[in-house]
Amino acid sequence: MISTPYLLFLGDAPDPLAAKVAQGIRDWRPDVSIGQYRMDGCKADMGLPDMTIPEAVAAGAKTLVVGVANRGGVISPAWLSILEEALLHGMDIASGLHNLLHDEPQLVATARAKGRTLYDVRVPGVKYPIANGKRRSGKRCLAVGTDCSVGKMYTALAMEKDMRARGMKASFRATGQTGILITGDGVPLDAVVADFMAGSIEYLTPDNDPDHWDLIEGQGSLFHASYSGVTLALIHGGQPDTLILCHEPTRAHMRGLPDYKLPSLEALQDLALTMARVVNPDVTVTGISVNTAAMSEAEAEDYLAGVEAKMGLPAVDPYRQGAGRLVDALE
Amino acid sequence: MISTPYLLFLGDAPDPLAAKVAQGIRDWRPDVSIGQYRMDGCKADMGLPDMTIPEAVAAGAKTLVVGVANRGGVISPAWLSILEEALLHGMDIASGLHNLLHDEPQLVATARAKGRTLYDVRVPGVKYPIANGKRRSGKRCLAVGTDCSVGKMYTALAMEKDMRARGMKASFRATGQTGILITGDGVPLDAVVADFMAGSIEYLTPDNDPDHWDLIEGQGSLFHASYSGVTLALIHGGQPDTLILCHEPTRAHMRGLPDYKLPSLEALQDLALTMARVVNPDVTVTGISVNTAAMSEAEAEDYLAGVEAKMGLPAVDPYRQGAGRLVDALE
Repeated sequence: MISTPYLLFLGDAPDPLAAKVAQGIRDWRPDVSIGQYRMDGCKADMGLPDMTIPEAVAAGAKTLVVGVANRGGVISPAWLSILEEALLHGMDIASGLHNLLHDEPQLVATARAKGRTLYDVRVPGVKYPIANGKRRSGKRCLAVGTDCSVGKMYTALAMEKDMRARGMKASFRATGQTGILITGDGVPLDAVVADFMAGSIEYLTPDNDPDHWDLIEGQGSLFHASYSGVTLALIHGGQPDTLILCHEPTRAHMRGLPDYKLPSLEALQDLALTMARVVNPDVTVTGISVNTAAMSEAEAEDYLAGVEAKMGLPAVDPYRQGAGRLVDALE
Repeated sequence: MISTPYLLFLGDAPDPLAAKVAQGIRDWRPDVSIGQYRMDGCKADMGLPDMTIPEAVAAGAKTLVVGVANRGGVISPAWLSILEEALLHGMDIASGLHNLLHDEPQLVATARAKGRTLYDVRVPGVKYPIANGKRRSGKRCLAVGTDCSVGKMYTALAMEKDMRARGMKASFRATGQTGILITGDGVPLDAVVADFMAGSIEYLTPDNDPDHWDLIEGQGSLFHASYSGVTLALIHGGQPDTLILCHEPTRAHMRGLPDYKLPSLEALQDLALTMARVVNPDVTVTGISVNTAAMSEAEAEDYLAGVEAKMGLPAVDPYRQGAGRLVDALE
């Protein structure tokens, strides 16, 4: 587990989108986000107090989280002296970038000298088992998508928040870098070796109380030629009791695959159920989560009403309407 | 590419099964298997000339292939002086064991000093791309199974052999350790990082002549909770034009999963076609390969006739009958 609270490092973000990791942490874990560090020219702002490294340490910050990505996912030379300063003042550093903190010799040396930890959440830190397929106690809900990047993480986090507010036992289970930085723990599934993918998800979602829900962060899509294997490992390792279908209705083609159209929600429902029944014959689809960000409020309402009538399931945009109706359907 | 011809190292194999990698190479590449090395007490025999290291080198051997696995897949200390001797005499070494040649400091040092290569075929040697899903020229056939270890590699190799005998352009494409040692090249798919699985198979089966067939070695099963993600990546990366269904009819449960029954051939056909159509709408199932090793000749014939009538497709055991009818169905 990564220590909290966090100082969110926004660096020299050229625009707000470059700091979307920080935004995710700020949105979902405001309680642990005590400040932000912005370099000259930074174009992102989380609305948190701007702090120097000494100020953040004085305020209790335990970890500097790299919440910004520049082109290519590298660690900018301009950041190094600040990251170094954080280590020297006793903070850990966490990053989800492709280029690793552990590949910066100066940071490695300083971290060792000061007894601090560098968390490269893109690298699995655990030797995961091969999946055994045994049924586990507790309940699990998995978001599956018609495509990549259609709101699966958002949906799971919104459901967890709603369930906790109701006093239900619920844990968001992160399977991607941003999710891991938000929760401080998880499996970086896209970096796990093929043979251990499903086992890593069994490891992530172990036996639990009968009334406890794991909300498992989805990845990829069964219909995405590049990443479908990751998605299937998630379904078979996660052993879901319920599935939430996730969709973005304005997309012209599968993300990164110009020649591939998105499947219908019906096709996703059929295929995801067929796959999930291999490990849990009682699995059901309980709701639909639609990312309507590209629609007007009226268009979104029309679209959601149409989906709901056609599919016979609650259909919401959790960003506009909250995830309450998706949670109602679980209860 | 691993250099041929091979000296097959059988070590101190406690029984013939322990040398099944050597057996596979011997069966499928007799032309490159010029000799065998057996230690005292070795219980395996490929029927090849027994050779010392100097004799093998004199006969032209370029690579010593570790064709034996002891319990745990480790490199036995008793083998080390022999492997060392092979390097000193100018041979390369290839191994598919879990424990790596590269983790033996003495072998690494000697290989470097003598300019020899250690091939650990369990470790990907290439930085594979992310799959792009683009259609490629040439034809591809993939064996998919109701379970792991039902004869998918054997089927693809038998088809390649038959096709080459007919003068067809055909290449077996290895995706597992034994297959890689047999062909000298391939992708160790179970060791590839999740994000790059499908891309590694696109890399393995690139554009080719319109009348060239890749016979892609299958892995796992869509119905196997531990490895299904690997199988789906193979289907989506391989973009098969035709599928061969592979089955072992006497198995009581899925390999390694006592709580899981095998699916029917119909269920496999439906699911594999649904999945493969995502990347190739014209894909068809053209035949069925059944491993009838546990049946008598009469039982096998009855069973195959029943499957053929039920499924309306040629059903053969390529070990008993050859793969000719599976190839007929491709033409």
